[in-house]
Amino acid sequence: MPIAAIISKPQKPELETLLPELMTWLKAHNFDSILDPESAAYVGRSNDAIERPDMCCLEPSIVISLGGDGTLLSAARAFAKTDTPILGVNLGSLGFLTEVPLPELYMTFEAWMRGEAIVDARSLMHAELIRDGQLFRQWDALNDVVLSKGAIARMGEFAIELDGQYVARFRADGVIVSTPTGSTAYTLAADGPILIPSVDAMVLTAICPHLLTIRPIVVPGSSEICVSVDGVPHETYLTVDGQEAVELLLGDRILCKRSERSIQLLRLHPNGLFNVLRSKLSWGER
Amino acid sequence: MPIAAIISKPQKPELETLLPELMTWLKAHNFDSILDPESAAYVGRSNDAIERPDMCCLEPSIVISLGGDGTLLSAARAFAKTDTPILGVNLGSLGFLTEVPLPELYMTFEAWMRGEAIVDARSLMHAELIRDGQLFRQWDALNDVVLSKGAIARMGEFAIELDGQYVARFRADGVIVSTPTGSTAYTLAADGPILIPSVDAMVLTAICPHLLTIRPIVVPGSSEICVSVDGVPHETYLTVDGQEAVELLLGDRILCKRSERSIQLLRLHPNGLFNVLRSKLSWGER
Amino acid sequence: MPIAAIISKPQKPELETLLPELMTWLKAHNFDSILDPESAAYVGRSNDAIERPDMCCLEPSIVISLGGDGTLLSAARAFAKTDTPILGVNLGSLGFLTEVPLPELYMTFEAWMRGEAIVDARSLMHAELIRDGQLFRQWDALNDVVLSKGAIARMGEFAIELDGQYVARFRADGVIVSTPTGSTAYTLAADGPILIPSVDAMVLTAICPHLLTIRPIVVPGSSEICVSVDGVPHETYLTVDGQEAVELLLGDRILCKRSERSIQLLRLHPNGLFNVLRSKLSWGER
Amino acid sequence: MPIAAIISKPQKPELETLLPELMTWLKAHNFDSILDPESAAYVGRSNDAIERPDMCCLEPSIVISLGGDGTLLSAARAFAKTDTPILGVNLGSLGFLTEVPLPELYMTFEAWMRGEAIVDARSLMHAELIRDGQLFRQWDALNDVVLSKGAIARMGEFAIELDGQYVARFRADGVIVSTPTGSTAYTLAADGPILIPSVDAMVLTAICPHLLTIRPIVVPGSSEICVSVDGVPHETYLTVDGQEAVELLLGDRILCKRSERSIQLLRLHPNGLFNVLRSKLSWGER
Repeated sequence: MPIAAIISKPQKPELETLLPELMTWLKAHNFDSILDPESAAYVGRSNDAIERPDMCCLEPSIVISLGGDGTLLSAARAFAKTDTPILGVNLGSLGFLTEVPLPELYMTFEAWMRGEAIVDARSLMHAELIRDGQLFRQWDALNDVVLSKGAIARMGEFAIELDGQYVARFRADGVIVSTPTGSTAYTLAADGPILIPSVDAMVLTAICPHLLTIRPIVVPGSSEICVSVDGVPHETYLTVDGQEAVELLLGDRILCKRSERSIQLLRLHPNGLFNVLRSKLSWGER
Repeated sequence: MPIAAIISKPQKPELETLLPELMTWLKAHNFDSILDPESAAYVGRSNDAIERPDMCCLEPSIVISLGGDGTLLSAARAFAKTDTPILGVNLGSLGFLTEVPLPELYMTFEAWMRGEAIVDARSLMHAELIRDGQLFRQWDALNDVVLSKGAIARMGEFAIELDGQYVARFRADGVIVSTPTGSTAYTLAADGPILIPSVDAMVLTAICPHLLTIRPIVVPGSSEICVSVDGVPHETYLTVDGQEAVELLLGDRILCKRSERSIQLLRLHPNGLFNVLRSKLSWGER
Repeated sequence: MPIAAIISKPQKPELETLLPELMTWLKAHNFDSILDPESAAYVGRSNDAIERPDMCCLEPSIVISLGGDGTLLSAARAFAKTDTPILGVNLGSLGFLTEVPLPELYMTFEAWMRGEAIVDARSLMHAELIRDGQLFRQWDALNDVVLSKGAIARMGEFAIELDGQYVARFRADGVIVSTPTGSTAYTLAADGPILIPSVDAMVLTAICPHLLTIRPIVVPGSSEICVSVDGVPHETYLTVDGQEAVELLLGDRILCKRSERSIQLLRLHPNGLFNVLRSKLSWGER
Repeated sequence: MPIAAIISKPQKPELETLLPELMTWLKAHNFDSILDPESAAYVGRSNDAIERPDMCCLEPSIVISLGGDGTLLSAARAFAKTDTPILGVNLGSLGFLTEVPLPELYMTFEAWMRGEAIVDARSLMHAELIRDGQLFRQWDALNDVVLSKGAIARMGEFAIELDGQYVARFRADGVIVSTPTGSTAYTLAADGPILIPSVDAMVLTAICPHLLTIRPIVVPGSSEICVSVDGVPHETYLTVDGQEAVELLLGDRILCKRSERSIQLLRLHPNGLFNVLRSKLSWGER
């Protein structure tokens, strides 16, 4: 029997009713459910919980993410090395990634079974942390890679290269390298532009740069951005999709380029980025 | 004998010496020179001047633009329908388009004759003004298409569509649709991002939007942006590359998409966008 | 009998019922009504209409502005040389100036008669246009004084002085000098800060400056800002509160300082700037 | 004999020559020198070093700060409770606070002795941290009070009140409350306006607000701003003039108002804010 992996957001009481219903529905449609620890807790089956990394090994046919963009981001990270499609159900306010509202959950699942769901492939960005000239760690990011100073630290100093060509050096609170998908996340708060998901590009945005002329830079998706930690790095940290954190050292280099992987988001309707923008940013109804 | 078309910026006294020298050099290299009215005036040969549109008909092998970005923009417009390469010599402060400094003029020309010059192709954007449902005028733009209100007018109201999908409607002083090349021109003053010339994209930026959540939007180069003049358009004008102006009427629609044409800029060195940015914006030397 | 001057916004059909009602109510409270041409038209008494400048000469005890911020601005201009209190009733969406909602019109009027209304004094800014070294025209502004280029023109060049001390020179689409009251008007669209009405200051904001480091500057209310039109002023215009327009010439100087006059806005409740900001800008309810 | 307190920036080798020279000069002018630990180290007299808090008790007549704005800030903090004038000598690039260049050190000191130096009084801001309803700590700030999240933390949630009136609540990386003096420090990097030092105001600026409509707010100097840590405060810190750090707890309230104290900066020339801005921000020479 094919498997559906269920990943849930904590502290959503409505899931106590929704989850058993969903599992029954899945069984009726010949799908076994596997549950992450949060999902398992809602249905009182914590003993059956499967850690997210282990879920992958069971090769589910589909991942159902129940929550918001944060929940979907963590599902995407867990399944980044597979092509498993993700059905992101939005339990709260409209999300940039989780556009399927709860009432469309079953319809979308059925459309997917019939091969009729829209598959919205989002490219990931591959980031490598090079320390002492060697690959130290690596990640695939759906949204962004952020270098930022600690709260107490003074501004960090960052040097930027593009495809090996020197771009600029400046002091700032941090630097964000973002995919088009991530342009509506942290990048937006740091005054960056909005990129339509299908633009083949990455965007680099400085956070509170000391140098007032630094502006967001949009580069081809095929290029490689390198951000080096220059100057004295009092507590500079790297986070990936807001969920990992590594303390950086002086001379660390972060390389960002297109990943060979992408994630597949399932939808009933074409991407509704502008619906979300109109709803979240009051962009004005017709 | 092949022909070199020379286009000059007015009020550059140094051209009185430079132009005769250049023409002698071209003759020695078996090129005939043809001169636009400005160039002809510098060498006292106004009778031989050829209007820019007529220059195209003589099918020159190369265009030499002597001045700044404005001079090159007007040369690019005159030759937009040809593939004639343009050698843009910078007579003043460093330009985003005219990166060849005067001392490299002859070297770059010789490199081009040997087939060794770098040819930096810049895609143009095609803009159509649709009035009463019909194509009213059309242009190819290297930098940008700008809709903006007159100085006395109140804010205009603009509606945006992308590939036929409604995006937003807002009041603003104007709207800029820009190529990557144009992102360092007016778009930059309107708080837009910088796009590397090779990004396959266009960027839409509102000028002083009344709606504070409107942000620059980067869209795929293959898409079509439509800006309509909505609301009461007290004196709204369309300018293309800062050099054309058409008064718009209520209901006019401006369609912007990738042009089938591009211009070919000749260089000795790879594109030095970051050199220019570091020089003009103090982005910090290594 | 004391006089109430009524100034109305055009194209508000509800005024056809409201105005006769208001005039009857005023008469019952021993006030004569005088009507501007718009108000007179609503009640079919265009022959009795009084032009706004002439209204002043009749020395009304109160001005009732029915419409939005634009209507109140024009009432304020008409009565700028008097101390006549203005009751600004808001007929449309919440306004920054017209905070009295229609249901509170009569209550506010009665509170004023009892001497119990809140009188919110807003300082005006005095602007002088100096041409060829001589005072050419002068105005009192409630919101702002704007220098801006025409739609077709290239950027203007502006030089700024503060109390006779040179500040900066830059090219831009324009320059706004604003009162605290005006900081939520055009200044906000040009990325300026919000000043609480009681701050004793003016703010200078550049519109799309070519120089990326130019930032809004807040100066003491007691100082004098001078903006000169430098460089070649292709069609640069001066507007005051968005309602006057004078074409400027090269060398024109605009002096802005605190006016000796202020306007008196009547309210029932303390100034609700933050209510308006929360409503208009979604600043988040508690 | 009157006392001059000397406070130095570390790692400035030129101080090894300058300091003995200055101390000799002071002695010749009948001033005793007292040295902070950094200064004492330069002249090999670490045993005579006096901690900055203890310097105050010796009641020096003048403080000489040798370094940059950071050095002067720490001197200002040490002497905030006194009226001791501070002579801030700038050893590096032009500073916003330390405008006296090294060659003018002795001239400025002599002008002060003759009562002819300009005394530039800068008001301080008083900040109180209220925890569990009680005053927990308090500071006087010359530049700013900053609440900001740690590098790993998610956005904090902040609620703002002005004079007890609710203003807004939003998520952001942080909030800066700044004096006019501090408006050219961190506030500027966070996109805030520039306030002339003599404006009687404070400015509140959000750092990377999630809510795009939040703008810097300038409030009267006589008002009281309250920032509360709302929502879940994963690692939110308070820093004062970039030099103190306290971890904040959920419900902590930070009150900012005008301090009763100010610092006295000595100068030969009137405040040169615009010189510094033109130099640091390329605002364009006349």
